Amino acid sequence: MISQQQLKIATRGRGLYRLDDQLGRTVRESGIRTGLCHVFVQHTSASLLICENADPQVGRDLEAFLARLVPDGDPLFGHADEGPDDMPAHIRSVLTKMDISLPIVEGRCGLGTWQGVYLYEHRAHAHQRRVLVTLTGE
Amino acid sequence: MISQQQLKIATRGRGLYRLDDQLGRTVRESGIRTGLCHVFVQHTSASLLICENADPQVGRDLEAFLARLVPDGDPLFGHADEGPDDMPAHIRSVLTKMDISLPIVEGRCGLGTWQGVYLYEHRAHAHQRRVLVTLTGE
Amino acid sequence: MISQQQLKIATRGRGLYRLDDQLGRTVRESGIRTGLCHVFVQHTSASLLICENADPQVGRDLEAFLARLVPDGDPLFGHADEGPDDMPAHIRSVLTKMDISLPIVEGRCGLGTWQGVYLYEHRAHAHQRRVLVTLTGE
Repeated sequence: MISQQQLKIATRGRGLYRLDDQLGRTVRESGIRTGLCHVFVQHTSASLLICENADPQVGRDLEAFLARLVPDGDPLFGHADEGPDDMPAHIRSVLTKMDISLPIVEGRCGLGTWQGVYLYEHRAHAHQRRVLVTLTGE
Repeated sequence: MISQQQLKIATRGRGLYRLDDQLGRTVRESGIRTGLCHVFVQHTSASLLICENADPQVGRDLEAFLARLVPDGDPLFGHADEGPDDMPAHIRSVLTKMDISLPIVEGRCGLGTWQGVYLYEHRAHAHQRRVLVTLTGE
Repeated sequence: MISQQQLKIATRGRGLYRLDDQLGRTVRESGIRTGLCHVFVQHTSASLLICENADPQVGRDLEAFLARLVPDGDPLFGHADEGPDDMPAHIRSVLTKMDISLPIVEGRCGLGTWQGVYLYEHRAHAHQRRVLVTLTGE
């Protein structure tokens, strides 16, 4: 069985946006009990990742790390048409990836206790992001 | 056809733990000849990756690189409840990812000659890690 | 339905090689309308990623970033049998990953407008790279 659905995520600028509830609902509605939940962000300046879900400081530390690793406005970058966060957003997305696959176990995403699934908006300003969810299984 | 199985990996602290044998056995037992082997670690401080499988120096160099990139005890990090390796373990996991999908070819994982599949334990101390394997194919 | 095919990509040394056309053809020939396109590079010194497809400067900036992050000939690395780009190629591949899964939507790869799929050759010299494409869906 295959089921595909597009989610729209309105971001308010750089940071993590949790997707667990929307993914869980999509899996539930599909009726799939065992299988895979593939999630894909159709952009090159936002990504998908799993992060610790309990302490909000983890997301802040991750952002501090990425901001140091890929500094906005770095003179190394020639591509800056859309501002100092343009090229860093592409690199952050490459490093954290735009696709993720989760197991479906007993009709739910088979996440560990401390795992949350997040869209990472890497641009400074708000964006409307399209996320395509493809569920396979039985 | 879908088959799902949980592996338990006892780590002895930070480092790479090869999974090829256990994954190969799981694929063989499923009877699937052509398909995909999805592997997922249900934690936020361990990850899954493919690495060169012949020279143990590669793993040591990768560890040296990650230790320099994401230093334990970095004052940048506010989240340190479980020690100086706590937040670095989360970031290393985000950078190297918790999910991986391998092709199944003629009843085996379709790895290249030099590819090995590894669990990367990012915490300093020993942990029991749950890895969920989902096989699809025919 | 499952379909598997091997692509051979002749690289001319370090850099990005676009795969969209070959992947699109493989999806079209399979007849699959809805599903997943899993792509896997059977090496440990080349990787697969999605990158902005319009401005060639993005690829140059990404290369400049990776060259700074994982310098060729870094004395940190003990594994250098095949030259100063040997270990950096392994690390770049680990950071950008060897597997990627794309959604298949209405018989095509469901990429966003600005997304291109690339093989990243991380070795300085030309190589012949094997890429295994596994399509599932209906």
